[in-house]
Amino acid sequence: MEIHSYITGFVDGEGCFSVSFSKRSKLNTGIEVRPSFSVSQHRRNKKIVLYLHSFFKCGGVRYSASDQNYKFEVRSLDDLVKIIIPHFEKYPLKTSKRTDFEAFREICLLMKRNQHRNLTGLKKIIQLSSKMNEAGKRNYSPQYLLSIIDKMKV
Amino acid sequence: MEIHSYITGFVDGEGCFSVSFSKRSKLNTGIEVRPSFSVSQHRRNKKIVLYLHSFFKCGGVRYSASDQNYKFEVRSLDDLVKIIIPHFEKYPLKTSKRTDFEAFREICLLMKRNQHRNLTGLKKIIQLSSKMNEAGKRNYSPQYLLSIIDKMKV
Repeated sequence: MEIHSYITGFVDGEGCFSVSFSKRSKLNTGIEVRPSFSVSQHRRNKKIVLYLHSFFKCGGVRYSASDQNYKFEVRSLDDLVKIIIPHFEKYPLKTSKRTDFEAFREICLLMKRNQHRNLTGLKKIIQLSSKMNEAGKRNYSPQYLLSIIDKMKV
Repeated sequence: MEIHSYITGFVDGEGCFSVSFSKRSKLNTGIEVRPSFSVSQHRRNKKIVLYLHSFFKCGGVRYSASDQNYKFEVRSLDDLVKIIIPHFEKYPLKTSKRTDFEAFREICLLMKRNQHRNLTGLKKIIQLSSKMNEAGKRNYSPQYLLSIIDKMKV
């Protein structure tokens, strides 16, 4: 068994690359950007979640009693850029999750260059995020977020 | 990328080993046993389903319009025993699906020795199947199936 390839296969089915946006009046742009890589499993599969944590050596594991799920999650931009993204560059995803990953990767690299702190960069990030997780739920639509930014420009 | 390991990782998240039972009055035992290995994906991931089909070189792919899913499925006992089972022996699953696989493997090997055609063998198969897919739906509970067999013995 080649474990890096196994991990990519498992994440291709069960993992999630997501970017969430929150309104924060104290920030210059008015919007906070938070990228996250996560894998959730029912508690019967706690072991694989802990295994992912020890494999990537970053992030954390939380239990949600309401859905009986363990979730491995990486939110640190540094860890995403230095550990998570390089893994999936070397062992590429094969499903539509690859599209999510590629937008996610772009967003993290923009953030690493502090581009989420200016309106042009943030706009680019929102546009990239609109390509991700088509079937998923969103707090705010990309259109709504862009409309906030357009107001900020005035 | 080592593709065998990727496949095991993907199946560990998304695959399904199952054994279904149907009442068939024409059979000596009264019960038909049908093992199946399958992987279903939303149509946006049609490509990986076709890939699995070409990788394992057996089984078939069907589209279900109602849930917009493509399903790769292997039902042939010969293909299960000669192709599918050896793959997961060589590249083992890591989640609770491994328990499903091990019961599935036992059942297929019993069937290969025609043990599903006598009541003692069939009873063993039903007991093994009760360890599988704890979260899944069943047409008949193992208890109900065993009660039918006990009636046959009289």
